[in-house]
Amino acid sequence: MTWRFFWPFRERYMTAKELSEVLTEQLYYIYTQGGYMALKKKPVTGMKDILPAEMEIRNYVMSMIRSTYGTFGYQCIETPCVEHIENLSSKQGGENEKLIFKILKRGEKLKLDEASSEADLVDSGLRYDLTVPLSRFFSANSGELPVPFKALQMGNVWRADRPQRGRFRQFMQCDIDILGEPGYTAEIDLVLATTTLLDRLDFKGFSIRINDRRILKAMAAYSGFPEESWDQVFIILDKMDKIGLDGVRTELLEMGFSEDSVRTYLDIFEKVTPDIAGVQTCRELLRDVLDETVAAELETIIRVVEETRSADFRMVFDPTLVRGMSYYTGPIFEISMDEFGGSVGGGGRYDEMIGRFTGASTSAVGFSIGFERIVMLLLERGYKVPQTGARKAYLLEKNLSPDKLTEVFAQAAAERAQGVTVSICAMKKNKKFQKDQLTAEGYTEFVEVFNR
Amino acid sequence: MTWRFFWPFRERYMTAKELSEVLTEQLYYIYTQGGYMALKKKPVTGMKDILPAEMEIRNYVMSMIRSTYGTFGYQCIETPCVEHIENLSSKQGGENEKLIFKILKRGEKLKLDEASSEADLVDSGLRYDLTVPLSRFFSANSGELPVPFKALQMGNVWRADRPQRGRFRQFMQCDIDILGEPGYTAEIDLVLATTTLLDRLDFKGFSIRINDRRILKAMAAYSGFPEESWDQVFIILDKMDKIGLDGVRTELLEMGFSEDSVRTYLDIFEKVTPDIAGVQTCRELLRDVLDETVAAELETIIRVVEETRSADFRMVFDPTLVRGMSYYTGPIFEISMDEFGGSVGGGGRYDEMIGRFTGASTSAVGFSIGFERIVMLLLERGYKVPQTGARKAYLLEKNLSPDKLTEVFAQAAAERAQGVTVSICAMKKNKKFQKDQLTAEGYTEFVEVFNR
Repeated sequence: MTWRFFWPFRERYMTAKELSEVLTEQLYYIYTQGGYMALKKKPVTGMKDILPAEMEIRNYVMSMIRSTYGTFGYQCIETPCVEHIENLSSKQGGENEKLIFKILKRGEKLKLDEASSEADLVDSGLRYDLTVPLSRFFSANSGELPVPFKALQMGNVWRADRPQRGRFRQFMQCDIDILGEPGYTAEIDLVLATTTLLDRLDFKGFSIRINDRRILKAMAAYSGFPEESWDQVFIILDKMDKIGLDGVRTELLEMGFSEDSVRTYLDIFEKVTPDIAGVQTCRELLRDVLDETVAAELETIIRVVEETRSADFRMVFDPTLVRGMSYYTGPIFEISMDEFGGSVGGGGRYDEMIGRFTGASTSAVGFSIGFERIVMLLLERGYKVPQTGARKAYLLEKNLSPDKLTEVFAQAAAERAQGVTVSICAMKKNKKFQKDQLTAEGYTEFVEVFNR
Repeated sequence: MTWRFFWPFRERYMTAKELSEVLTEQLYYIYTQGGYMALKKKPVTGMKDILPAEMEIRNYVMSMIRSTYGTFGYQCIETPCVEHIENLSSKQGGENEKLIFKILKRGEKLKLDEASSEADLVDSGLRYDLTVPLSRFFSANSGELPVPFKALQMGNVWRADRPQRGRFRQFMQCDIDILGEPGYTAEIDLVLATTTLLDRLDFKGFSIRINDRRILKAMAAYSGFPEESWDQVFIILDKMDKIGLDGVRTELLEMGFSEDSVRTYLDIFEKVTPDIAGVQTCRELLRDVLDETVAAELETIIRVVEETRSADFRMVFDPTLVRGMSYYTGPIFEISMDEFGGSVGGGGRYDEMIGRFTGASTSAVGFSIGFERIVMLLLERGYKVPQTGARKAYLLEKNLSPDKLTEVFAQAAAERAQGVTVSICAMKKNKKFQKDQLTAEGYTEFVEVFNR
């Protein structure tokens, strides 16, 4: 047996959690070196096991998604979880590209001796979103797909983010996208489909915030910010929720932008109301720097959604809405929910991304809902999925005769055919405890079976 | 622009497929070096994109699995796709351990300079089955689970197998397992649940082959093979399907086993019939080397299943059934389907595996169905998932007025509430082609909407 030293305090302070991880690692090392067979029981850092109670809610939400989006004509597709490292590192993914779980080359392709950097070791990685794979999917399979193509994707994605409460390194994303439709009816369709879904999942009083990347750019141009600085300006603007108008002013001035520009810029946000009138104000103000169809289309999107909706939500024109990803080219949207205190989904138009794969540009617009957040909110509410049919359990005495067993299993089969959930299990010594457990799982009827 | 040479013929002959891969790589290299942004369009080697027609069947099979197993009391759970490399390399996975997709360490944990082998570079990998993660799951969460626990898992697994027709490197597995139930009622439950499912998916006339690892060992002991050679003997026996009794005899003799042992061994298989009488013959023959309850229990399993089943299948006692994994400890089973010409699922009892994680042994038995094979068979049959409700498409003229748009979207919402699938899309120039595409997707009603 060899010994190895752990030096846990190499960096500043350690949190209790970090310390516990180091200690666990030490114990594990000692055990395994000592020949003890114990393996690691916990899931890998930042990922989680999902128990039946949560799975029931997840399955329910997934089936609601499939059926609701289905009635809007969206069709399910799937891409592999593993994607070419070149596609994942194509600069389409912004910050997420730093968080890729990379997969080692295999067999003779792995040349450890010759490798001088990480890039020499890997040829693929786990997808960090569903948009990059969708673009690849569409360019590879467009010959077999209708145009426009309305896609529904539900699948796991992975990001090696710093683990924190409620954020995991593997999580489910759920996206709808319309590919090959340049007109704004696509945006209306996505917003109505998403809000109908949220309504069916019993979410009320949320807001759909909407803006347009072209309005965002026009506002920056109108205020006289130099074009190469717009991304910086938008990063600061994006903090409006948290730091307010004064905070944004301070940060912009600190960045060295001219007082004139900053004043002109912030004046817009004071003038613009969060509704159709606000869009009209923008159209007026920005008429020299913005194609007037942009504001007209945004107005139509808001108007048609407001007049059509049956669900209980508000359409909010929010000129401060940025959405991080630089690939957006037109309207952008986000769902805000007071209950959650943040975004539970969003999307927008990204007309140029698919062209990066095909060379031929294809219009595209998508809306992603925060599946994990929705599940979390339902769990916190104590939501119970409506149970279908009765639940009955047979508890069998040990060593039942084959005849008795046949009788029980045959009866259970007949009951299942009637829609009853029937579980057959051996009778435990502590019958009361066993029945309590089964009751907690929703069983209401118990039959004890004995040989005599 | 730098140039790089590709020398594709370094190894013997190349297949057309390999050659095409090398050429694609060359072209890709030239494009990217030339500044062209094209990315890789095809999925990574051995994995596939799933188009709507296949997804519809997959979703149908998954919902049948969930509902059928649900009525037997199995509960859905999920584990992360990423698993500790230690757990994946614990020798529970047999040959599959050679096929792991390994994940690179991240951040400061990756010390490329100091790495002397692959093991220094990785800390996790993609799971190659659902059994190892289930064992970890149960040992981590048993405090919150009922005993016995009836688990249903559907999830992707990854194996870096040599790609070949119909076999993929990412594929869905679907397992049911009963943990904490030592008695054979668990086996009966698993077999009835699985056969009920196959019946509901419209598979008829298949066989469930059954054997017991303890009978397998007893037969080897009875024939006088030395215990340390049993695994070798079983590997040859496993080929009975393909090479027949004579082939097995030749291979055993070639391995140097005594003629006496080989004759005694093969005599058993000639005597034993593929039914309950066969089990009784084994019980008689092997009475000195086999606990008689083993055969008695196997007999009961077969009898109860045969007398209970409503589905159309045969129970076959097959003393040559081996099942590769050495972790099996009791009854083992496999589904054979003539239509497929091979196994479409299997399982068995593995009472010792969970103990490797917990130190405390836990009985366990599982049955896995070949999800991908079932989907493939349904696709080959041209199976159509029963369509629910009508499908209607609105084709919109360009630049419809907001009022007209509102009218259409509102009407569509009302129709969806009635269960109709309604898709709204822009009218294409080639209306006939557009309607043909929509007809292929199942749309039967078309409404053209104009401004006037």
